[in-house]
Amino acid sequence: MPRIALGVCYRGSVYQGWQSQPGGRTVQDVLEKALRQFADQPVRTLCAGRTDTGVHALNQVVHFDIEIERELFSWVRGVNRYLPPDVAVQWSRVVSSDFHARNSARARRYAYLLLASPVRPAIESGQAGWVFRHLDEAAMREAAGLLIGEHDFSSFRAAECQAASPVKQLREIAIRRHGAYWRFEFEANAFLHHMVRNLMGCLLAVGTGTRPAAWVAEVLAARKREAAAPTFAPDGLYFLGPRYDQDLQIPERTAAFDWLPG
Amino acid sequence: MPRIALGVCYRGSVYQGWQSQPGGRTVQDVLEKALRQFADQPVRTLCAGRTDTGVHALNQVVHFDIEIERELFSWVRGVNRYLPPDVAVQWSRVVSSDFHARNSARARRYAYLLLASPVRPAIESGQAGWVFRHLDEAAMREAAGLLIGEHDFSSFRAAECQAASPVKQLREIAIRRHGAYWRFEFEANAFLHHMVRNLMGCLLAVGTGTRPAAWVAEVLAARKREAAAPTFAPDGLYFLGPRYDQDLQIPERTAAFDWLPG
Repeated sequence: MPRIALGVCYRGSVYQGWQSQPGGRTVQDVLEKALRQFADQPVRTLCAGRTDTGVHALNQVVHFDIEIERELFSWVRGVNRYLPPDVAVQWSRVVSSDFHARNSARARRYAYLLLASPVRPAIESGQAGWVFRHLDEAAMREAAGLLIGEHDFSSFRAAECQAASPVKQLREIAIRRHGAYWRFEFEANAFLHHMVRNLMGCLLAVGTGTRPAAWVAEVLAARKREAAAPTFAPDGLYFLGPRYDQDLQIPERTAAFDWLPG
Repeated sequence: MPRIALGVCYRGSVYQGWQSQPGGRTVQDVLEKALRQFADQPVRTLCAGRTDTGVHALNQVVHFDIEIERELFSWVRGVNRYLPPDVAVQWSRVVSSDFHARNSARARRYAYLLLASPVRPAIESGQAGWVFRHLDEAAMREAAGLLIGEHDFSSFRAAECQAASPVKQLREIAIRRHGAYWRFEFEANAFLHHMVRNLMGCLLAVGTGTRPAAWVAEVLAARKREAAAPTFAPDGLYFLGPRYDQDLQIPERTAAFDWLPG
């Protein structure tokens, strides 16, 4: 049975996250409903990274097995006809039967967009986090440097996290500024539940001067959630997507990468 | 009685435009309701440029007269407490009693954001227009050049337009590309109703190769709406705000200017 992979872009504002739920207001629910309408049969998808309520995705990758033959681009154009305006398939590939959207991923990337301004967001509400205080870039970079590497990230892990191990390899935290907006990009082999939002909470505690940069090393060493800052808002969080082995030729970008400022 | 000017930023997606209506789902309605809650008295505002349903604004300017004394920044922070998340006051000024948000304006600026891609928008739905065909930048620039200057813009004017004259001075059309996104910026002394969306319809008829660049000169000369292309979608339209005499010291930018791509 052929296996298809799709890249999906969505604004998560009105959805209760990725994962299917009885209420049906999740991204997986609307995607599988659209696939069923297009393919005229039930389709179960598996994704690269489950996103929480209010979190967006630029290149969520899913796979599924299906018997029918369709022209490849019709999995984009045809399925999009049945999707709401804030969700759209971006690309489609036929992949081998050993490709697995989650297990084959070598890395995941997230971006966090933040407005630092005395005035709260309006046109970008739900699409950017907000701090009203000035941010110390040098202090945040120093703190970010202390977090890079393979660590036990238990202090940055939600109680309900289902990961087998709290040890993850955080490969990069890139910090860029564009006017009043900041863009934080994170890459790791995998992330724990709420890990990016908890990292953001700590970086901003440092950036706003509440804590010194060295404090994040203490948080990391404590290996308990209570040591860290509160979980930061989901509003500005974007799942940029997974990375696979290059020879699989899975797209790592979508047009929407150029929509984000900075 | 002191006159106050405010700069207001909003995402127009869920509003029936600027202008107050019995239903109450307009930006003016929610702003005046918030002002009334903050000032504890009715406040009537007058704006620089009325926007249509679904159109956004980065620096809409309003003025009103009010007897009470409040710390100036509280007209930002205090009023924002009563506004929905997609509308926020950005700045406040005390202005002289001969300042008039609309009549004092020397120019208005609009931006149109457009995704040119085989795949429709998702995270930016309602916030960018969309064409699925390739755009010819040189042809659009040539067409834009033919529209600059003082002209009778009757061909680009909605039937319900209330402007006294169809003659306007179009000072600039700037076209920039950023990845799959295009940003068109328009500046004129004033705009007719639907003028930017009608200009966009014609520029895109040229950009997609449906019409040659020289055709826009014929459209302009015809001075009737039927000569032009259909009104383009409101989704990607942003009122950047008015320009006043520099010595009035009215802000011409808000933080959100850096939110738009390109």
